[in-house]
Amino acid sequence: MPTISLKTLVDFGTRLLVRRGVPLRDAQYIAEVAVTAEAMGVTTHGLVQLTAIDSQIGKSIDPARQPAIVRNKGAMAQIDGDGSIGQIAMRLASELAVAKAQEHGVAMVGVGNTSWIAALSVYLLPLAKQGFLAQVWCQSSQCQDCAPIGGVDARLSTNPIALAFPTGGDPVVADFSTAAVSMGKTARLAKAGQKAPHPVFMDEAGHVSDDPTVMVDAHGVRQAGSIQFWGGQSEGHKGYAMSLWCEAITALAGGRTNDPQSPSRQSFSLLVIDPEAFAGREYFQKQIDHLVAWLRSSRHRPGYNKIRLPGERGQEAYRQAEKSGVPVAEPMLTQLNALAAKYEIPVLPAG
Amino acid sequence: MPTISLKTLVDFGTRLLVRRGVPLRDAQYIAEVAVTAEAMGVTTHGLVQLTAIDSQIGKSIDPARQPAIVRNKGAMAQIDGDGSIGQIAMRLASELAVAKAQEHGVAMVGVGNTSWIAALSVYLLPLAKQGFLAQVWCQSSQCQDCAPIGGVDARLSTNPIALAFPTGGDPVVADFSTAAVSMGKTARLAKAGQKAPHPVFMDEAGHVSDDPTVMVDAHGVRQAGSIQFWGGQSEGHKGYAMSLWCEAITALAGGRTNDPQSPSRQSFSLLVIDPEAFAGREYFQKQIDHLVAWLRSSRHRPGYNKIRLPGERGQEAYRQAEKSGVPVAEPMLTQLNALAAKYEIPVLPAG
Repeated sequence: MPTISLKTLVDFGTRLLVRRGVPLRDAQYIAEVAVTAEAMGVTTHGLVQLTAIDSQIGKSIDPARQPAIVRNKGAMAQIDGDGSIGQIAMRLASELAVAKAQEHGVAMVGVGNTSWIAALSVYLLPLAKQGFLAQVWCQSSQCQDCAPIGGVDARLSTNPIALAFPTGGDPVVADFSTAAVSMGKTARLAKAGQKAPHPVFMDEAGHVSDDPTVMVDAHGVRQAGSIQFWGGQSEGHKGYAMSLWCEAITALAGGRTNDPQSPSRQSFSLLVIDPEAFAGREYFQKQIDHLVAWLRSSRHRPGYNKIRLPGERGQEAYRQAEKSGVPVAEPMLTQLNALAAKYEIPVLPAG
Repeated sequence: MPTISLKTLVDFGTRLLVRRGVPLRDAQYIAEVAVTAEAMGVTTHGLVQLTAIDSQIGKSIDPARQPAIVRNKGAMAQIDGDGSIGQIAMRLASELAVAKAQEHGVAMVGVGNTSWIAALSVYLLPLAKQGFLAQVWCQSSQCQDCAPIGGVDARLSTNPIALAFPTGGDPVVADFSTAAVSMGKTARLAKAGQKAPHPVFMDEAGHVSDDPTVMVDAHGVRQAGSIQFWGGQSEGHKGYAMSLWCEAITALAGGRTNDPQSPSRQSFSLLVIDPEAFAGREYFQKQIDHLVAWLRSSRHRPGYNKIRLPGERGQEAYRQAEKSGVPVAEPMLTQLNALAAKYEIPVLPAG
């Protein structure tokens, strides 16, 4: 697989977005977010951000439009993301939430109706590195992937959540779907003619299944089945509750709850907490150091060479990419260079 | 099973706790919490609160001690629960968080080192009925139930979380463990000689298992195995991340992260959000009404007669108990009446 340096990719992304009408400062931020996700190994939510934004400009995205702060009171703010780029709405939300958490101890900023913000952990990592705890709940208004408990018709998206907090080493950071498996992975399995390792799907008649084609066929066409919630048959009621929380916490922020008639939008609410306001950063760090040492004191499970902390692998991959470049799959490289040709900017090297 | 009226049970619990040195106002609150949980069908976390508190008085609990507010700034407060009764620490946390959320839009109150607070949903339900969204993350410092990803030795408790938000009808409310199954259920299965319906356990060698006796034997003696996290083999990394969040968000509040050498304490952090500060209660309610109607429009799954919302069943059970009394299992009735005899208060009727 070709590998390309972080700087080359960020410069390329910035140039592409500027060429598409995105202001320089915004273009650079978005390119960094997209490249960071790719470098962390989140290839389903990495460089594809660039092609996704390109395809929505002039449709749901006005490239120069800035997200608007519509409410701002005490520890909260609400942002109207409509027409602006989700990544930029998230940057504004993060800046506001950090400033407010420093003042009030805790802060929540909600963003309604923006575009796809992709890899949530990329946004939370810098907050944890600054010493904050952060959680984000995210909702997509238009997709129907999961059926409510007791039902067979999909009524909710795979609403993702993410969390991060500092440790003495790499921050703990995790982002994941409230569904048992993401739509991206489901489509990949279907295309490859593979089954899931667990029965994470449900067909239209309500039978559980490990067959992704109850949900989407090999050509990517949506079928009448659904994905179970995080926890599957035995514990899916927990993932269901978390998915509904994502709906409520974003409805509050001016988002629209799930609706096939709605325009395709993401909404999210970001919570940031300053441990300094509570028992203090020093106390917090001491407890977390103890926790990490305690976890690592466990004997290893066969097949594992270490005790894992959430987000470790992605941060290791990023460090590797800093040294030897980001592996970019050929189809993505082809897509990006087709855009380069179309918009008359220098192409990416072949690696 | 004997059924006893809510009022009779609350009066009994109040009298018992007052007799044990708990101030009247506190005793009444705790009795209401315990009886409400029992009436909602949460029998593992209901009337047993009374016997649990009784057994800890003079040990980890000083019945007259009030939780202390040690920090109070902007949208946050931190409470030291040490020696006080957890239920009373939660009452104080709720009062503070509601007042602060009304002022700041969002509030978080953390409580470190208190006693077992039992059924989380009972505390969140009144907040949702007042129109707030609430989430609580809870940690137990002493138990080792779940092994970190990559390990075989249990290093974390079944750290539970809960969430609630208002709807046009009953609030949505859910509380659950970040483990695949609770320790209480594990012990019940082991005692009954039954297997779990799914392989939710892991033995000491790292093999997944549906056998609860890898974790606890039929006599309740702890074995060297562990419970998998919420999501099991395929998605346990998500439950692991949530469990670590419970550790971090309570370490922040002055709690102690998991430690077998520590005294047995619970810590928790309560988040309360006022939708009025964001897009407004009216907008929020309209979106949630739409969501509930949209969920209920799904065709039913075979074996279900309705689309379920989290917490519905418990609230239905409570209404039934208001009409016809709370079903109380004979062993619990016997235990409570043994305490009545010991402390010379009137016994409960046989139902």
